Amino acid sequence: MRVDIWTDINCPFCYIGKARFEQALEGFPHASDVEIVHRSFELDPTSKPGSSAPVVPMLAKKYGISEAQAAANERGLGAQAQELGLAYQVEGRDAGNSFDMHRLLHWALDLGRQEALLDALYRANFAESEPAFGSRDRLVEIAESAGFDGAAARAVLEDETAYADAVRADEEAASRIGIGGVPFFVFDGKYAVSGAQPPAVFTDALDKVWGDRPEPLTVIGGDDDAACGPDGCELPQRG
Amino acid sequence: MRVDIWTDINCPFCYIGKARFEQALEGFPHASDVEIVHRSFELDPTSKPGSSAPVVPMLAKKYGISEAQAAANERGLGAQAQELGLAYQVEGRDAGNSFDMHRLLHWALDLGRQEALLDALYRANFAESEPAFGSRDRLVEIAESAGFDGAAARAVLEDETAYADAVRADEEAASRIGIGGVPFFVFDGKYAVSGAQPPAVFTDALDKVWGDRPEPLTVIGGDDDAACGPDGCELPQRG
Repeated sequence: MRVDIWTDINCPFCYIGKARFEQALEGFPHASDVEIVHRSFELDPTSKPGSSAPVVPMLAKKYGISEAQAAANERGLGAQAQELGLAYQVEGRDAGNSFDMHRLLHWALDLGRQEALLDALYRANFAESEPAFGSRDRLVEIAESAGFDGAAARAVLEDETAYADAVRADEEAASRIGIGGVPFFVFDGKYAVSGAQPPAVFTDALDKVWGDRPEPLTVIGGDDDAACGPDGCELPQRG
Repeated sequence: MRVDIWTDINCPFCYIGKARFEQALEGFPHASDVEIVHRSFELDPTSKPGSSAPVVPMLAKKYGISEAQAAANERGLGAQAQELGLAYQVEGRDAGNSFDMHRLLHWALDLGRQEALLDALYRANFAESEPAFGSRDRLVEIAESAGFDGAAARAVLEDETAYADAVRADEEAASRIGIGGVPFFVFDGKYAVSGAQPPAVFTDALDKVWGDRPEPLTVIGGDDDAACGPDGCELPQRG
């Protein structure tokens, strides 16, 4: 079973939703058969690369609310995070362009350690006072904190083309599916859960997909085949 | 629709099977909706990296047949290839370790141009007199012939870890599925075609999978969601 999760580091409900999904997964008897792939989604792809700005005034300005209201929203999100045991700095997190982070997450996926990097990025943004955005040095430091080789992470960051197409491909897939907000969970390409839903909703999705899991492959054309194996190339046995 | 094709550059039926599959695809009305991913399979993972050896004496020794019989088998394969319009040097192709080639194919997949590299590797092995195996310089040259940046290809080749896990993951997936020989085609994870079957068999598989293609996503848990979108983070509207 495979779960694709579209996510952005700027998204508090992605941080919260991941923990709720993991609660459901912990109670799921077939958790070890679940492959999870985190897919790229930028909440604000137009934000300037290399910059970082405090989130409260940014949100107040963007949505035409008072800074007090924006700060109260942050406190509400913080309370939801803390209920799940997630650290959340209710004052002072930044927002910024996440394209580089998504490139790094694709690199980490290739290395088979995407989850560790995503957790470190969330922690840096939502739980640590130093801004997570705006500096490649900071991203290298975050990658190192998650056990990655810093020089390799830097090489990916400094090659602007590295994994850029992979990020865009995820965003195009999101657009094809019609994803308007994140987190967005797709289970085996069949079921979707939108948002940081309660763990019971994820449990329901996991159970449904497990019940629907595909039959073994149906072979078409027989296995009397023209194929090469460790014992050589077998010509079809006709007649 | 997605087709995963396990393949090895050492495998003449993979070269032939690819052309037969493409014949079927040409006549398939939904060809533009078919995503093709070539997956790694090493016919002889124990062969020494960096070496290349003429295939006829190697096959004769490995399978305990005479060199004349091995050469006749090659001529038989060549005739099948030529029927499809594929060049095939019936004397003189080499065999060798393909791990580096598979790493490069994963790199090309990330660049969205895997097919071009695979065709160039097949051509080098089956249609050109210079050995395709045994030299990274030669692989760089082959990549360049397919329009890739030679320096970038060399950087992948010289970093032994680059895409190595991706190759191994493909081989583990092959083993899980129970693939004993290549080419092996999997259609949307549901149907399989083993070997270089006639185009009609691939047409049958394409038609079946198209008929079975998934319904739109079923949303679980409603869309009254705690999610972040371009317009901010929406708290669920309860009651």
